[in-house]
Amino acid sequence: MASVSAKAPDQPAIEIASGPYLVASTTMKVPTKDRVELYNLTPQIQEFVRSSGVRDGQVIVASMHTTSAIFINEWQDALLFDIRNHIESTVNQEGYYRHNDPEWSDCDRNNADSHLRTLMLGTQVTLPVADGEVVLGEFQGVIMGELDGPRERIVRLQIMGIGNE
Amino acid sequence: MASVSAKAPDQPAIEIASGPYLVASTTMKVPTKDRVELYNLTPQIQEFVRSSGVRDGQVIVASMHTTSAIFINEWQDALLFDIRNHIESTVNQEGYYRHNDPEWSDCDRNNADSHLRTLMLGTQVTLPVADGEVVLGEFQGVIMGELDGPRERIVRLQIMGIGNE
Amino acid sequence: MASVSAKAPDQPAIEIASGPYLVASTTMKVPTKDRVELYNLTPQIQEFVRSSGVRDGQVIVASMHTTSAIFINEWQDALLFDIRNHIESTVNQEGYYRHNDPEWSDCDRNNADSHLRTLMLGTQVTLPVADGEVVLGEFQGVIMGELDGPRERIVRLQIMGIGNE
Repeated sequence: MASVSAKAPDQPAIEIASGPYLVASTTMKVPTKDRVELYNLTPQIQEFVRSSGVRDGQVIVASMHTTSAIFINEWQDALLFDIRNHIESTVNQEGYYRHNDPEWSDCDRNNADSHLRTLMLGTQVTLPVADGEVVLGEFQGVIMGELDGPRERIVRLQIMGIGNE
Repeated sequence: MASVSAKAPDQPAIEIASGPYLVASTTMKVPTKDRVELYNLTPQIQEFVRSSGVRDGQVIVASMHTTSAIFINEWQDALLFDIRNHIESTVNQEGYYRHNDPEWSDCDRNNADSHLRTLMLGTQVTLPVADGEVVLGEFQGVIMGELDGPRERIVRLQIMGIGNE
Repeated sequence: MASVSAKAPDQPAIEIASGPYLVASTTMKVPTKDRVELYNLTPQIQEFVRSSGVRDGQVIVASMHTTSAIFINEWQDALLFDIRNHIESTVNQEGYYRHNDPEWSDCDRNNADSHLRTLMLGTQVTLPVADGEVVLGEFQGVIMGELDGPRERIVRLQIMGIGNE
């Protein structure tokens, strides 16, 4: 395989900032409507970052659940259809799961597939923050995957870094 | 697909804290017994956070290996059985892998599947810390997946944030 | 399943540091040559950390794209071959995707598979930094997966923590 190491940037321009350290946090509620569904959290995260008073640092976006995921991808209708299909075909809802078997489990939601789908997608991302804005690529959005709805989901946002003067 | 943007919280209550910045770290050893096995790291992480002296910030939980994973899910016996099954069926142990072929590889552990399983699950999570406690949902646990045991595994815990007065 | 909780370390030695808080960031360009290709970013990350002036904290390595991934695994030729095979066989390039269908999508790259592969691998990792060095296990490398090349990719590096005196 023709893999090589990444070329170092010719002139690595490093920007450095320092100042008083700040931590700000909030809890977002996302009421969902279907069993499997995708939500674009990007505008709310951007709004939170702007109102937090932190200029440079990072923000954590964390699902407080084991059957809803947080990940980065493009928020485009056609692609969202493919992502949902992929999630549903990669881990079957039907089939035997011990978590769905009353002989083994006290959970009556029959949601083993939701746990396994969450396992594959992850439950949290950490994003850089610079100049008071989330650092995301042009096509990147932060997406919550509801994988066992409908429910009210809780997403924790926590930003930390250098506060504005 | 009926996906819509998440509704913004009506009154986003943002909590802000500031103070002296602290970094604390430790190394946890996890001796494992089987080839594929799951370990609940949550109590040790909670204990570390409480004794670190950090009140608000975040903690990184990072496997120091390429064949053991760190992820968040529910610690329930029936589900752990399903997770292990899922890990073993998603990536086959048998089959041809160049990493297991002495003509191509100097690794004699025959553990290509362990690397690929780790790839799918991830090796680290970052958790918010607030009021001196890890912020986790009711059913969330931090789980280490041993994927090429038995071995002694090393997990790095590093917390950073505002220290107690 | 014979899973038990991880044993607590007998004498958890916690190292604590405090001092002035610093954030440093840079943007790395990675020109790629093939559609699916792996790049070892570890040396560039190490160099960035050493030149950042941060002694203890963490560094985020974030792809600015939705079709290139960032993950941790071993940089070994035979294994890289297996990883690339695994990526290509887990999500098919062929097959119907709405994202590739001009009736549904304005994207003409035919790269639905690249998005789904990125979804499974993740786009960012957070690494602890201690004593001015990235904390990585002996066999761990930070790898960028080009999943829709060739292109010039952007990777954001952001470090935050206690600065050197």
